Order: sequence, then structure tokens, then C-alpha cells
Amino acid sequence: MIDVTINTPDISLRKKACNKMDMKTKPPGSLGRIEELAVQMCLIQNTLSPEATKKGHLVFAADHGVCAEGVSAFPAEVTPQMVLNFLADGAAINVLCRVNSVELAVVDMGVNYDFEDVEGLIKKSVRKGTRNFVYQAAMTEGEALQALQYGSEAYEELKKKMGGEMQVLGLGEMGIGNTTAASAIISAATGCSAEEVTGRGTGVDDEGLRHKIQVIDAALKLHQLNEKNGMDILCKVGGYEIAGMAGAALAAAADGIAVVLDGVISTAAGLIAWLINPAIRDYLISAHKSVEPGQIAALDRIGIQSLFDLNMRLGEGTGAALAMNLIESACAIMCDMASFEEAGVTNKE
Amino acid sequence: MIDVTINTPDISLRKKACNKMDMKTKPPGSLGRIEELAVQMCLIQNTLSPEATKKGHLVFAADHGVCAEGVSAFPAEVTPQMVLNFLADGAAINVLCRVNSVELAVVDMGVNYDFEDVEGLIKKSVRKGTRNFVYQAAMTEGEALQALQYGSEAYEELKKKMGGEMQVLGLGEMGIGNTTAASAIISAATGCSAEEVTGRGTGVDDEGLRHKIQVIDAALKLHQLNEKNGMDILCKVGGYEIAGMAGAALAAAADGIAVVLDGVISTAAGLIAWLINPAIRDYLISAHKSVEPGQIAALDRIGIQSLFDLNMRLGEGTGAALAMNLIESACAIMCDMASFEEAGVTNKE
Repeated sequence: MIDVTINTPDISLRKKACNKMDMKTKPPGSLGRIEELAVQMCLIQNTLSPEATKKGHLVFAADHGVCAEGVSAFPAEVTPQMVLNFLADGAAINVLCRVNSVELAVVDMGVNYDFEDVEGLIKKSVRKGTRNFVYQAAMTEGEALQALQYGSEAYEELKKKMGGEMQVLGLGEMGIGNTTAASAIISAATGCSAEEVTGRGTGVDDEGLRHKIQVIDAALKLHQLNEKNGMDILCKVGGYEIAGMAGAALAAAADGIAVVLDGVISTAAGLIAWLINPAIRDYLISAHKSVEPGQIAALDRIGIQSLFDLNMRLGEGTGAALAMNLIESACAIMCDMASFEEAGVTNKE
Repeated sequence: MIDVTINTPDISLRKKACNKMDMKTKPPGSLGRIEELAVQMCLIQNTLSPEATKKGHLVFAADHGVCAEGVSAFPAEVTPQMVLNFLADGAAINVLCRVNSVELAVVDMGVNYDFEDVEGLIKKSVRKGTRNFVYQAAMTEGEALQALQYGSEAYEELKKKMGGEMQVLGLGEMGIGNTTAASAIISAATGCSAEEVTGRGTGVDDEGLRHKIQVIDAALKLHQLNEKNGMDILCKVGGYEIAGMAGAALAAAADGIAVVLDGVISTAAGLIAWLINPAIRDYLISAHKSVEPGQIAALDRIGIQSLFDLNMRLGEGTGAALAMNLIESACAIMCDMASFEEAGVTNKE
């Protein structure tokens, strides 16, 4: 996965797409971010008639050794419980994927649990949880490479399940303790302090937040990371679900598919993918601005902006699922709206 | 319409709805505005299982006498041209209603054109455009009352077309010159200066913007409006499509239906409706933050907040159509997500 080829979109198409959008029966620019999104989808799909009706979503799940430090408001047993909830169709991401006609699959990247073979579960477990990164690397380099590869395979399996046709991929996650890993990654890759990029996750109190920052500070002091080395950051303070998302993002972008990031954890995965291969940026869409402060630092580093802010911090890809509708709408505007000429409407004086 | 009865939602239901939401398998509050929206829909529909799958949208169109002052970047002939574009399924609102499964109808409230009888057009013309409010009242009180009543009837006709079942109503408009009317209304009703609440509409340049502000200042000086008298503000500086939207909003709220406002013009209509009957506030949802500066002043006055900001300023109800998906998603979360108990997931420690 780390040497995957991602095509840079044809820049000459940008002007053509912008021109097509400006000829639509509306004041130029009046659909704001929807217009930008439509143009981005043109570039990603190398067409002036982009589509986003075939939508897939992967929820990557894994456990985290750093949970032993007491960094989360919920116990680690909630990770497998929530995976079972996804498989029973009871979680927020299930509801939002149904409403938005998004095909959903769940990937076990390293949950501390033995799952049965169930419809909707893709089994890619690397190890039953990372090591506690306050004392040692979260994963070996071999495990990280394996997890990236598994993420790529999970993308391929979902695409196959969708009859080989996917136009946009949403990424989400479940893993008690993973905002700690995400904040550590973002601090390491952006140079921001742990205090700046660490939030309350599922809801730790003031003391819990201080402790979480101390844990991240200790880990970063131990590992002495290079901010440009995505693989090393991933190995030392990452998580298997984060590696899985990065691998799926790289595979989808290499396949010419738009990738929708969700909150702070999937954005940390996007950041790792971008450090591994910066060409991925043109394929990334950030759905929503998360409540978690690390997300904006990661987005700034990548150089992309979120579409909306609904004060969300759930994860699972819930924001990404809500963004699917905007992406589909943007593509439909580019394809189906009449031009001034077609509609016989007088253009601006 | 001005003496319509709007029920105040049962306040005891708020606590029950919040409790139900907090028992869902997610950290409390982690779905942010989606949770608030779900609770609001419970109150509007007086149930703990709200639904927003039956979605209607009305685009009210009319012409404006104030166009004679040269306040718009587009000529007045664009109003009927765009109505024909709506009826030919070529405009942005057509595309967005289709993608979001929203039933659309267009209402001629006073366009300077003789339309044929066409499927999808509701004919409620009060007069072929308002008078130029720089010199006289835009409409008589009789016309304003008629327009409010027509708006109510348009709501009833759309509902009937939907088999008598509508759960949420979006409001949009078309009328060259109507950001001038909307800004005048908002300035009159909020006490903000014309300069503070006037934007570029479909795209006037710096000189055009200065002129537009002068026109509004002159009108407000002439009419000497009382900020609490919605009917008088509507008559003096309003528009027939604005009155139609206010009438439809009042009728829908009286019928227990959620009303989705779009940009500055529909929000000005919402402000008029709120001045006429403040009980409407509980039924109003502001879709998006518009680029037009008057909208936020109007929202602040009513006391509601937009859901998202996509830098849009098109009108037609395009933002409202995009919000429909969020409202439907919020209702589905309230109805279909499993509780901690149902899913066997351990709650916060």
C-alpha cells in the first residue's frame, strides 16, 4: 500500500468544470461549497458528469493498549459491544447509512474479541488490540504494513459486494481509546502540542482530560517522532483501525474514488495516508468539523476544509454518512441543472 | 391567516425526548445539532417517534416594483424565465428536490407574466408585481391579507397533492429584486441599519451595493415603520412571494408541520410570520447560514440558528432542500437507534 500510485487529476478539466457550473441557471458561485464539491468530483472521476449515487461506508474497529492508562470515559469492552451493535443494525451509523442509501460494512482490524462469521463483518484482525504506546510502539512495522493492506482489501471487498461499482467511500471507526491515538498522531505530525489537539473524546471530565494530555505527552517524549514520517508515527502511536482507514483511503484514491473523512480519528488516518502519499489530497473530502480540537489541526496540515459543523463528536463515520447527500446533490447539480442557454434565461447584465 | 392558532408544544415532552436520546448507544450529546433537531421534531409532532420522510417544498415567485431603481444584477424578466425553468425541471431546486425525494410545487404569487395552466404550478397571483416602495406602499393591506391567505392555500394544495400527508415543508422563492425587499423588512423589524443587513443579492458590484442601501434607506425613511408591526412592514416594503411564504409557514405550523427556512428572503418571511404569531418559532428550522448579512439579524430576532453554512446565496429554497436530509436523519436516529439496554452495551462509567 505504501507505494501505491494515485493519479493527479487533469488540471485542464478544472477550468472546463468551472465553466460548465457558471453556465447553470443561477448567479455564479451562488451554490458556494456545493459548486466546489461538484468540481472536485469532476476532477476525481475525470468527467464533466460526475456521479455519487453508489456510496459505500466502512467502519474499522480495533482496541487500544493505551486504554490501560484510563484515558476514556467508557470501558474497553464497549468496542466489541458496539461492533455487535453495528452488526445488529442498532447504531447511529446503521441508521444514517440506511437513510442515505449507503452500503455499510464493518471491519474487525483488531478488536479484543472473537467474532462469529456474520454478514456485514469483514474479518481482518491484526492482533487483539495495540500495545500500550506509553511504554512501547503501538504496533510493529510488519503489523502496520499488514493493517494498511487489510484496509485496502476491505475496500475491495465492499466494492465487490456493491457489484464492483462504488463512486464514493466513507470512513468511520470504533475503538475505545482511539481519540488518544488520533491526538498523539496529530500532535506528532503537525507540531501542535498535545494540549492543543486533545479533546474529551467520548466525554472525560476536566481531570480526565488533563490525564489524557499527560499520557500523550509521555508517549511523544518516549517515541521522538519525525513529523514527516507517517509510517513511523502510525507504528509508534497509531491504532489498527486508523491504519485500516489509511489503507482503504489510499486504495480508493488509487482506484479513482472520492474518500469522505469523518471526525478526528478518520482525519488522523487521512493525515497518515497523506504523509505516505500526498497525491491523496485531491481525493479527500472532509465531511464535518468535529468538536475534537485535533481535527482542524490535521485538516490544516493536509490542506482541506470541512463541509459543515453540526457540533458532532460521535465517530463511526456518522458525519461522513450525512455528507454523502451533499456530494450526491453536488454531482446532480453538475449533471442535471439547465444552462442559461438551454433554459432560455437571460444571464447577468 | 393573521389570527391562526398555533399550538405551543407540550414542554413535558422535551425531557422525555432528551432522555430517550441520551439512552441511545452513543456518548450523550455526541450527535450535536442532530440531537436537538430530533428533539424539536418530537415537540412539533407531539410524539417520541417523529418522522420526516414526507417532504414538501414550495417556491413562491413574484415581481418587485423596486426593480425600477436598478437594485439587481439581473433584469426583471428573469423572474418569469426562472419560473418556466422550474416548471421545465431545469433549476437547482428541481435537482435538489429530486435527489432528496422532496415534492415540489411552484406558486405564482405575482409574477409579471401570464402563465399557462401547467402541472406543478399553483396560480395565486395577487397582482403583476408590487409597487415601487421607494415612492409608495409595496402593497395594500387587502393585498397583503390576500397573499397570506394564498400562501396558506398553496400549502393546502401541495399537502393534498401528497395524499394529505406532509411532515415537513420547505420554503423558497424567486423574484428579481427580492433581496432588497427582504433587507428592508429585516432592517425595519430588527432596528439594524440598511447597511448592516444589505448584501449583493444575485451579485451587484460595490457601486450597486451602495445604491441598493440608499434605496432601502429612502424607503425606510418614507414609511416610518414600527418594528413590531409585521403586517405594516409587509405592506410597505414586502413582496407577494414573501407574504405567500409567511402565510404558508403560519398554515403549516398551525397544522403541526415543521417549516424549513432557506436564505435571507424566506427568513424575512419567517420574521414576518413570527411578528404576526410568535408561537411559530417552535416550528421553524433554519437550514443554512446565507452569505446575505441580513439573514443572521433576522434569525437572531426570531431566536433560532441555522444548521449549516455552505456559503450559499441562491435562494429557491436550495438550502432548505439540502436540510431535509438532516431532518429525516435526525428523526430516524430518534426512532431507530438502539438504546444501551437494547444493544447490551455498557454505559459511561
